[in-house]
Amino acid sequence: MFDNINQYTTRCGKFSDEELAYFDGLLISKSIPKKTFLLKEGELCNYEIYVNKGCLRSYFLDKEANEVTLQFAIEDWWISDIASFNERKPSHLFIETLEDSEVLLLSYEAKEKLLARVPGFERMFRLMLQRHLSKLQERLFLTIATTATEKYLDFIERYPTIPQRVAQHYIASYLGFSPEFLSKVRTRLSKK
Amino acid sequence: MFDNINQYTTRCGKFSDEELAYFDGLLISKSIPKKTFLLKEGELCNYEIYVNKGCLRSYFLDKEANEVTLQFAIEDWWISDIASFNERKPSHLFIETLEDSEVLLLSYEAKEKLLARVPGFERMFRLMLQRHLSKLQERLFLTIATTATEKYLDFIERYPTIPQRVAQHYIASYLGFSPEFLSKVRTRLSKK
Repeated sequence: MFDNINQYTTRCGKFSDEELAYFDGLLISKSIPKKTFLLKEGELCNYEIYVNKGCLRSYFLDKEANEVTLQFAIEDWWISDIASFNERKPSHLFIETLEDSEVLLLSYEAKEKLLARVPGFERMFRLMLQRHLSKLQERLFLTIATTATEKYLDFIERYPTIPQRVAQHYIASYLGFSPEFLSKVRTRLSKK
Repeated sequence: MFDNINQYTTRCGKFSDEELAYFDGLLISKSIPKKTFLLKEGELCNYEIYVNKGCLRSYFLDKEANEVTLQFAIEDWWISDIASFNERKPSHLFIETLEDSEVLLLSYEAKEKLLARVPGFERMFRLMLQRHLSKLQERLFLTIATTATEKYLDFIERYPTIPQRVAQHYIASYLGFSPEFLSKVRTRLSKK
């Protein structure tokens, strides 16, 4: 159950078996059916969620209550509402499973304990944040500065397995396209 | 010269005088006149920039070569292209001074040295990234899910001193408004 996350952890730093076991002991393991919410708008985000198996997404609602997908998370990714989790304020986001999923949850309190006892984990969270921030900045750039085709090509490069795993309308809501428009972009690309 | 950054550092963790002095010794101090580029699109971002005094901004160009302001940084903020700096790849961004500024530069190599010798600094960078990621996520949400007036009110709450310090068109390019539209929003608010 902890094989994947322990590999993730040891890619980010050197930890003794005891330190890894302490970390694993703080995680809550859950099997969650498809289409279940782990967070809803207005709630406090209490967990950083590591995806052991399956697929989750986070989204928020725009002014017309359309869903805007912020992030997909598949195996070996973390997902949460960083602002809500760290600043202890209500979330704007929804987080839900798109497939039957196995996740490991790290609570705010458990993370505090972990960092107090094993400061070496600071590095792991720094690298995780760095990766997320890079992706989000890149995404903002792509959203504003590139064409629809470039956006889609970047998406399938970044998330190669997602198009086979989730319904097209989720991808459309990530890219800011209507489902019909996404379909046109795909057709145009497949003819090239 | 290092008073502000040392206060910043000690808010993020406990460091001995020797550790702080080692950190300060790795920083490059520069006085930079208004309207000078510290980074241009296509270059590698070699520095994380701490603003001791003054005001900087980062921006990129959209499809029509309009400037889109990504971030303002005033006293006690860091600014850089996280993706370019950490992944050692060319930047999409420009970073320039909007006022005569005093900055402290931390190079990629210096940061590596610092973290190898004083791992306690991991925490400082984690907290810095956390703050940036929160703001950027919040910004994406505001961009997509709120009205023009809400966007502007959030902006002045977040950056209360910026409207007095920089030309209006920079603020417009941050908010994704034309300068004329920003002016209308401000007029509407001042009548309330």
